[in-house]
Amino acid sequence: MATLNRRITLAARPVGFPKDSDFNLVESPVPTPKDGEFVVRVIYMSVDPYMRGRMNDVKSYAAPVQLGEVMGGGAVGKVTASNHPTFREGDVVEGFFGWQEYAVSNGQGVRKIDPKLAPISTALGILGMPGLTAYFGLLDICDPKPGETVVVSGAAGAVGSLVGQIAKIKGCSAVGIAGADDKVAYLTEELGFDAAFNYKTESNYFKKLKELCPKGIDVYFDNVGGEITDAVLRLINTRARISVCGQISQYNLEQPEMGPRLVLVSLVVKQAKAEGFLVFQFADRYPEGLKQMAEWIKQGKLKYREDIEHGIENAPRAFMAMLKGRNTGKQLVKLSEE
Amino acid sequence: MATLNRRITLAARPVGFPKDSDFNLVESPVPTPKDGEFVVRVIYMSVDPYMRGRMNDVKSYAAPVQLGEVMGGGAVGKVTASNHPTFREGDVVEGFFGWQEYAVSNGQGVRKIDPKLAPISTALGILGMPGLTAYFGLLDICDPKPGETVVVSGAAGAVGSLVGQIAKIKGCSAVGIAGADDKVAYLTEELGFDAAFNYKTESNYFKKLKELCPKGIDVYFDNVGGEITDAVLRLINTRARISVCGQISQYNLEQPEMGPRLVLVSLVVKQAKAEGFLVFQFADRYPEGLKQMAEWIKQGKLKYREDIEHGIENAPRAFMAMLKGRNTGKQLVKLSEE
Repeated sequence: MATLNRRITLAARPVGFPKDSDFNLVESPVPTPKDGEFVVRVIYMSVDPYMRGRMNDVKSYAAPVQLGEVMGGGAVGKVTASNHPTFREGDVVEGFFGWQEYAVSNGQGVRKIDPKLAPISTALGILGMPGLTAYFGLLDICDPKPGETVVVSGAAGAVGSLVGQIAKIKGCSAVGIAGADDKVAYLTEELGFDAAFNYKTESNYFKKLKELCPKGIDVYFDNVGGEITDAVLRLINTRARISVCGQISQYNLEQPEMGPRLVLVSLVVKQAKAEGFLVFQFADRYPEGLKQMAEWIKQGKLKYREDIEHGIENAPRAFMAMLKGRNTGKQLVKLSEE
Repeated sequence: MATLNRRITLAARPVGFPKDSDFNLVESPVPTPKDGEFVVRVIYMSVDPYMRGRMNDVKSYAAPVQLGEVMGGGAVGKVTASNHPTFREGDVVEGFFGWQEYAVSNGQGVRKIDPKLAPISTALGILGMPGLTAYFGLLDICDPKPGETVVVSGAAGAVGSLVGQIAKIKGCSAVGIAGADDKVAYLTEELGFDAAFNYKTESNYFKKLKELCPKGIDVYFDNVGGEITDAVLRLINTRARISVCGQISQYNLEQPEMGPRLVLVSLVVKQAKAEGFLVFQFADRYPEGLKQMAEWIKQGKLKYREDIEHGIENAPRAFMAMLKGRNTGKQLVKLSEE
């Protein structure tokens, strides 16, 4: 059994896009559980866009990571030692264990995972936070109706790829925007999106979207922001609903980017709504969301992909690649064997 | 009795801010009513920000005014001749009669006004479209709670001045942004706003708002947009609600203004909502709104002011002055005596 716990800490607050030297790989002893605690050997850890915000020293919905502190994040692992009444050695659990090989926990915010129901990695993806984000962010914020056109940016990511599929399940037309030709093919050929395009090779987003959305855009699920969103705004229909899940194009800028003042003018002209949300708002309805998503997976209506990096030392690299949109589907880092 | 009907038509589509030559004063005979029609002598006509949008040749929620066509707009007047079963000579009525001294109508969208209940001009203001806009735009879109901080831009206008007062009735703190010192005094000394400031003499909106809203901003009723809204966005609280009533700072630009991409980033960071609306969405609940507003006026809880220009030939001037924010309260043009 290992005696060393390798961990990634925040070495410096990034200026603009994060770089290797913003992270430190440190070693400490594997923790031992006190009364009411247990220790988890992490198997999969998640890297997600929201983590970029927590690297800044800015009060947001979550406290920032402190310099020298282990990077926060969701993970799935196996309990290796326990002084906790509910979580026992051998249990597979999901929780906010951070970027480290071993974590100690008192059980708060931790859930047990049944490895027989689905691959345990899905607890970080389609049957975890990204899945619930897609489910509630699309259905609750936007209430898509059959026949409506739903556009999603960041469409090949962990959340976006589910949003388009859920839109299809609800009888909508789903149009995806992604950053690579193979992603576009994945969306239309494997996931059943009606259309998609590669924004990196398309020079006129507006014209392309107009072509792909001949009836205009009723629902927009935005992961990205910036010029892609500008083009969408020019095509929204009356009473359109915009779910603002993320603005990843804006997270790594040293100064706010300038753009045309389109958002509020579009909302008033179209009597439209834009709403930001965090999945935690829907915490009391997670069971509903998870049950429905699991059912859709079983029925073959929802598909997913995982992009897996290996080794804690590569977590920063996986995180930065995800911020650059290099992943297709959920980006994970595998730290140990199941 | 007059035989000539003086009317203002659209002479040219404005490029940027409208100018005198965009309007024509034309004369035609006073109309005579056909079967099912009646003729109205207009007493008060309204000039409103939304009319600027209709001068452009752009499909919006309402069709644009055509070149050579009479400018559209709400008005109050007296029926002078009628072949209509419901509207009789002598009735005081409110409807979309346009910028002209006499209008012919088939009764569609026209309501009778009881001159004993309130001054008939209020049918274009506090007991008309601006009043209903304030009422539903604040209460339905934002659902303000006692103790919350409500900020309104364009606060001394027909809508804004009511929004702050309704916020106070609901137990909120009301903070207004206006464009003149006498308007600021009007808001705080006469209308009971907790605070207000003059954006034309204030160099740092953010600092000023931070001082006036020590608990942050829960609700923002936006008539204006632009840099004022940028400052507000930096101060919104978690789960803030933004009612997008207008963006008057953006209506007269030849090209969209550039600004920092703050709106959607703010919404996602604060899980906030921004929603554009048109008062017509609430048409089936107008009676509720009018009844409540009338009650509040009677109880002395709602005050209002009117800014009255005289003569149809001065309607364009009143309209342009209103777009520049020169009015306090509802801007009207009086065309004939009651």
